[in-house]
Amino acid sequence: MTSPRRHFGSDNNSGIHPAMIEAILRANAGHVPAYGDDPYTLQALEVFKRHFGADAQTFFVFNGTAANVLSLGAICESYEAVLCSQAAHINEDECGAPERWVGCKLITVPHEHGKLTPQAIRARIKGVGVQHQVQPRVISISQTTEFGTVYSPDEVRALSALAREHGLLLHMDGARVANAAASLGLSLRQVSRDLGVDVLSCGGTKNGMLAGEAIVVFDPMLANGFVYARKQAMQLASKMRFISAQFIAMLEGDVWLKNASHSNDMAKRLAEGVRGVSGVEISRPVQANAVFARLKPAAIAELQREFHFYVWDEAVSEVRWMTAFDTTEEDVDRFVDAIKACVKA
Amino acid sequence: MTSPRRHFGSDNNSGIHPAMIEAILRANAGHVPAYGDDPYTLQALEVFKRHFGADAQTFFVFNGTAANVLSLGAICESYEAVLCSQAAHINEDECGAPERWVGCKLITVPHEHGKLTPQAIRARIKGVGVQHQVQPRVISISQTTEFGTVYSPDEVRALSALAREHGLLLHMDGARVANAAASLGLSLRQVSRDLGVDVLSCGGTKNGMLAGEAIVVFDPMLANGFVYARKQAMQLASKMRFISAQFIAMLEGDVWLKNASHSNDMAKRLAEGVRGVSGVEISRPVQANAVFARLKPAAIAELQREFHFYVWDEAVSEVRWMTAFDTTEEDVDRFVDAIKACVKA
Amino acid sequence: MTSPRRHFGSDNNSGIHPAMIEAILRANAGHVPAYGDDPYTLQALEVFKRHFGADAQTFFVFNGTAANVLSLGAICESYEAVLCSQAAHINEDECGAPERWVGCKLITVPHEHGKLTPQAIRARIKGVGVQHQVQPRVISISQTTEFGTVYSPDEVRALSALAREHGLLLHMDGARVANAAASLGLSLRQVSRDLGVDVLSCGGTKNGMLAGEAIVVFDPMLANGFVYARKQAMQLASKMRFISAQFIAMLEGDVWLKNASHSNDMAKRLAEGVRGVSGVEISRPVQANAVFARLKPAAIAELQREFHFYVWDEAVSEVRWMTAFDTTEEDVDRFVDAIKACVKA
Amino acid sequence: MTSPRRHFGSDNNSGIHPAMIEAILRANAGHVPAYGDDPYTLQALEVFKRHFGADAQTFFVFNGTAANVLSLGAICESYEAVLCSQAAHINEDECGAPERWVGCKLITVPHEHGKLTPQAIRARIKGVGVQHQVQPRVISISQTTEFGTVYSPDEVRALSALAREHGLLLHMDGARVANAAASLGLSLRQVSRDLGVDVLSCGGTKNGMLAGEAIVVFDPMLANGFVYARKQAMQLASKMRFISAQFIAMLEGDVWLKNASHSNDMAKRLAEGVRGVSGVEISRPVQANAVFARLKPAAIAELQREFHFYVWDEAVSEVRWMTAFDTTEEDVDRFVDAIKACVKA
Repeated sequence: MTSPRRHFGSDNNSGIHPAMIEAILRANAGHVPAYGDDPYTLQALEVFKRHFGADAQTFFVFNGTAANVLSLGAICESYEAVLCSQAAHINEDECGAPERWVGCKLITVPHEHGKLTPQAIRARIKGVGVQHQVQPRVISISQTTEFGTVYSPDEVRALSALAREHGLLLHMDGARVANAAASLGLSLRQVSRDLGVDVLSCGGTKNGMLAGEAIVVFDPMLANGFVYARKQAMQLASKMRFISAQFIAMLEGDVWLKNASHSNDMAKRLAEGVRGVSGVEISRPVQANAVFARLKPAAIAELQREFHFYVWDEAVSEVRWMTAFDTTEEDVDRFVDAIKACVKA
Repeated sequence: MTSPRRHFGSDNNSGIHPAMIEAILRANAGHVPAYGDDPYTLQALEVFKRHFGADAQTFFVFNGTAANVLSLGAICESYEAVLCSQAAHINEDECGAPERWVGCKLITVPHEHGKLTPQAIRARIKGVGVQHQVQPRVISISQTTEFGTVYSPDEVRALSALAREHGLLLHMDGARVANAAASLGLSLRQVSRDLGVDVLSCGGTKNGMLAGEAIVVFDPMLANGFVYARKQAMQLASKMRFISAQFIAMLEGDVWLKNASHSNDMAKRLAEGVRGVSGVEISRPVQANAVFARLKPAAIAELQREFHFYVWDEAVSEVRWMTAFDTTEEDVDRFVDAIKACVKA
Repeated sequence: MTSPRRHFGSDNNSGIHPAMIEAILRANAGHVPAYGDDPYTLQALEVFKRHFGADAQTFFVFNGTAANVLSLGAICESYEAVLCSQAAHINEDECGAPERWVGCKLITVPHEHGKLTPQAIRARIKGVGVQHQVQPRVISISQTTEFGTVYSPDEVRALSALAREHGLLLHMDGARVANAAASLGLSLRQVSRDLGVDVLSCGGTKNGMLAGEAIVVFDPMLANGFVYARKQAMQLASKMRFISAQFIAMLEGDVWLKNASHSNDMAKRLAEGVRGVSGVEISRPVQANAVFARLKPAAIAELQREFHFYVWDEAVSEVRWMTAFDTTEEDVDRFVDAIKACVKA
Repeated sequence: MTSPRRHFGSDNNSGIHPAMIEAILRANAGHVPAYGDDPYTLQALEVFKRHFGADAQTFFVFNGTAANVLSLGAICESYEAVLCSQAAHINEDECGAPERWVGCKLITVPHEHGKLTPQAIRARIKGVGVQHQVQPRVISISQTTEFGTVYSPDEVRALSALAREHGLLLHMDGARVANAAASLGLSLRQVSRDLGVDVLSCGGTKNGMLAGEAIVVFDPMLANGFVYARKQAMQLASKMRFISAQFIAMLEGDVWLKNASHSNDMAKRLAEGVRGVSGVEISRPVQANAVFARLKPAAIAELQREFHFYVWDEAVSEVRWMTAFDTTEEDVDRFVDAIKACVKA
């Protein structure tokens, strides 16, 4: 039906990692109670506690949109506001879901390669105490960012310090948090909770699961009523055991890390393959599993005849190439060759 | 981790049907575009057209709550109302999701074994044209009902005629529509579109899928903008190919029918096994894959020590026993024996 | 343009009381800051503190719908539920505003002449702790009820005790709370806060104001963020001084009590005028400013040719006659005569 | 209580115009049906038809927030977007009400002195047909703008042409549309409907009413169901006759024009009074009833000791001085003298 080819469109163009397949098959035995009242889910929640601390509260949902929107809903009243990058997924690519579900306003902040700074955020904090204006309440950052860059621990710490100073909470969109942790050589907790993050959207799908994301709340008070909010938000899976089993397979050992590291390595290999090639300008720091580059429009068009990937910004002829857990060295090398051929032509 | 035992708690306590597993494995090859722009989804949408007509518009979502709520959202303004049974899943078991997402009011109607009649509905249609009152807009029925009963074609036709007469639309919560079709010996189209249903929530999960439901809209005008509404409602799957592949496996041949028929047969076997047994009173017509019965509280408690199932109405000591595609004759027979032993004790 | 006639349609068919007119004219002097930052509003808030206690938080809104909906919004999450009478204004006559704005479900409770009892409410409290079901959170009662009856202090106390027992909050829709207080010979505080009410919608419009209602919150914690919620709910008046000035005129002296008492007296006069008249059956206790009665349809039709009032329940030929602060003895006597003539005919 | 002084804080700091007072008093006679079913409202709706055309549909609401939000709600699905100026009242000063009520996203557009251009809007139209992104649907402009500037007819025409070209609708926030019409020497229709506006928020409060705004919909199809939406949005006034009577007084003759012209004249007088004064730099074109100026911070502080007005942008030491229908030449002259004294000091 489709050739088993790996492209560079997105890490969610990938399939399911063998360990996840195996976990699904193993969990597919007999009947268990639905909606999370099953042994797989109990075990998965324990696994998250081992990663994030015994008092971390975890909730599984279907996809990344829900992970982000329900995270924000847990910590933000409708008359409050979320400060985020103009390029944030929650702002650009979730079809207004935060506005619709939470009712809040997103206040966009200028970014550099997807990263926010305290100065940039501070300039957008205003209207505090003015009844006509939404009240800043949350800083939301993406780690890995939408540009494949990674905040350093100090950079996140500076943002959480700013948040504390202004009575704000810090949300991390971690659809690719594993790639960030792998890039930094830190644990999942070290890149989130330990740096002052209050709520983490912890991705599973992009790192090898069929579907499944986790919301991890570090202050149990913030999780009050969350199970009802999740059900009302249409995000309670009936056969939850299959999400849970995948998360066990992902996080009990080091599959999460191996997958993310491999994905990052493939991006690095791709970047190194094209660096210095005339006609290809790498346009963003390559710190995780994405390579952004500028090529001539004709070369892009030529390359897209064989490979699926996205033009990020037509105005400056910038493309995004993403690698995934299942991208092979051969995939990359073949792609590098194709790029070289196209830019030469 | 859990013994591979089949219980009678719910059909969503079941696992994944082998054909679905096979479909997932087969689709797990290489990269394909995300969010439904893949060959599996294209094929699955074609399969739905073959079932429901070339102009039927189908949209996949993750779960039954979403299938119902997004269906209602497509045909109901926030100031309009949905007429449904007091026992309707949308009223009782979705934690207020229709109210929250659509903003509408549910007007509950008395039912008999889960089924609505034109007379009962007519008595609740009021306030039409009065600006202070929500405007009736949708009749929503469950087929199979929450009590395991099945509307006859004439009964549904009478409801759609009533709907037309009052300018209402007819929604069918078909989380178990396959069981109804199997029970009636009709096709999926014959039990829905051909009887005047406007929008169908077409279940997959309870009939053997890991997860996945479809919304089928029979008037294309009603589907305007639906893809945006789905994304905003947090229901767009990134690796949609795996939902699609399962629906292909379910609906291209007759897996849907075999699974539902088997499930229905197991309920019939269970009902026949306990009918006439002193101390067990079957309390609802057994027309699909559920058996409702009344037992003494002590017998229920005894039985629940070994088997998982739900007490439906404590006040009258009524229980619900559900069968699934994977329930075996041995499961049923062993359960029947256990019931007999418990009521005797 | 319209003859200066008083009808019996509703107390909101009345005009503006002279004291309110005078207050508006007096406040119409020069410029003052908008949105409540003016001396009239400061004074009005003080007047409310004198009535309800120094820690009561008061917020003005435009109308009764908003007073109720914003009250509920302050104390109820979207996944929680409000228990109220089937006949409650919030359920029947606000076009689904609570569902749309708060996102919550209203659970309707059988009533007697508009009044709820602990037993009736208790029977509807269910699903507590079940993630699929909305969580009961608020009991909302109308005082005066929609049937012109008045809860005794003991009756309200019993409901607030029930609320405390179940961790619920008690909201009072007091669009006509002045009539209730007048009827009971108690202060506004004595009929609300002192009986365990948590939030009061305190009516102004029906008792003689042009427009203006107050939300009085007795636990300051519940009022957190309310000013932002009000603005977001489109209920912040720019020229708020004119609402405030009216409330000062209403509540600084005893205008509220005189108006309500007079209105109640006129209803009593009307009831006494028709009591015992053959063909008129008073169908509800007359305890405030409404008289419900059953007449033959033909008599109703005849009477409506000259007088404006509403048929409450066509099925049982029951009408509602309301009096207002400006209803005169002559209005009542003329109406009584007309009723007598119509039922005789 | 407050000295009858006119300040320069805002036109909604003004009181009620004598003609509106008289209209309220005249309408305060006897009982009339509530909620708009009264002769005053019927007459007021006729007056709007005379101004805007026989097929224009008009709906009264309490305040400007509601006029804007309900206008947008009538023409914008939740997954659609409104293009507006960053400085638009709907974006900056309504506490997120559009996001909360409509569920939509506001896409902000750079402006010049509050005015949008086709080029600036065109650059922000994107993602059309992409299911992940909100779909542009409405252009919303303020006329008079938040900076006291006025779009020329050609400028509005260019925006409505752009809207038609892209399948968008044009909303005009006309909280001060009378000032714009007066400034341009055109009728209310000529500055709105005749230039391609689809829905107009037509202000009353700032031009002399106690409270009351109108939503005027030029395509009757867009007004479908509006009365229910208004009630659900908590914006249906019970004693609507008093809003209606004021609108009759405002619009039957030329009170609207006289008030707006006078207000504009006072701003012009103020601008002329300070133009050329060293230390005062008029920072925006003065085309309606606002004067923006830059003064030294110390001068601002000094001036605010006696006069109430707002600092618009502290960063550039810019203030806003607004005039109203009741601002007198003496008020202006005294203020000019004070300004001169402060900047000299």
